Amino acid sequence: MNMQHEATALKESRELFVKMVVSNWELQNQRLNGWLSKISDQRLSQPVAEGKNRAVYLLGHLIAVNDGMISLLGLGERLYPELDELFVKNPDHTFDQIPPVSELRAQWANLNQVLSGYFAELGAEEWFKKHNAISDEDFAREPHRNKLNILINRTNHEAYHLGQLIFLKA
Amino acid sequence: MNMQHEATALKESRELFVKMVVSNWELQNQRLNGWLSKISDQRLSQPVAEGKNRAVYLLGHLIAVNDGMISLLGLGERLYPELDELFVKNPDHTFDQIPPVSELRAQWANLNQVLSGYFAELGAEEWFKKHNAISDEDFAREPHRNKLNILINRTNHEAYHLGQLIFLKA
Repeated sequence: MNMQHEATALKESRELFVKMVVSNWELQNQRLNGWLSKISDQRLSQPVAEGKNRAVYLLGHLIAVNDGMISLLGLGERLYPELDELFVKNPDHTFDQIPPVSELRAQWANLNQVLSGYFAELGAEEWFKKHNAISDEDFAREPHRNKLNILINRTNHEAYHLGQLIFLKA
Repeated sequence: MNMQHEATALKESRELFVKMVVSNWELQNQRLNGWLSKISDQRLSQPVAEGKNRAVYLLGHLIAVNDGMISLLGLGERLYPELDELFVKNPDHTFDQIPPVSELRAQWANLNQVLSGYFAELGAEEWFKKHNAISDEDFAREPHRNKLNILINRTNHEAYHLGQLIFLKA
């Protein structure tokens, strides 16, 4: 194998990893969207099980956490940083008023589109660089804590809450 | 960069990616084990929410599905194939008798140990080969459907059910 061949193999290999992670991320989104499309706004305002979070809170939580990837991965400016206060820093029922379900639905759809656009543009090599919440020193020691690892982690996070959301039937 | 350097970069890159996926898998197991260690056998026999699966059913389901990776990834003989009938092919409450909770706990712990051993021994290159549920033709077209992709998928699957299990408090 010559040098160019090896360099190509490395590039293709990285592109394959990225595709595996991004496609698993998209699979979770597809499942969540399938569920969401069948649920009325009124149902979304109910807890997913007795005494548990309301579905609308979990939806807001997923928007806020996933939106956080935009800054964490250095992709650009976050779309909805104001949602952290309502859906990340505080538990459900802390505030009397949260955004209407219709607004959250639109934000969720828009965020997924924006993230997909960013992910499609990010070069495979870039995914293996450090994200913005780890120091240079830590990253030198633990190079697996890269941008792609954040997406793996956020995909698991979405799957975790999807398992709860689907308790609410249409 | 010389040829040997490139070959090393490819190998290191693959090893890094395997480490990312396996460590995210282990993280889900740690979380599940943390929850499991605090839950009594009696609590495990209860549904995670009204009208939903019993926690013990979900535990059996996770054992069966994760055990299935042993054959799917060509690692060896499955440990508990008999659990498929009870926990994969049929919904909860199909059978009057399921194995005692203590037995499932022991199987879960043993399976995780066995899988960790297999994963530690499997070479990075091997992870990028096809698994046993995809044809040569399909794999040639879709090389991202490799062994490692199965582990990414099963990690999301475990996260999904973990989100449900933790509804049951100690």
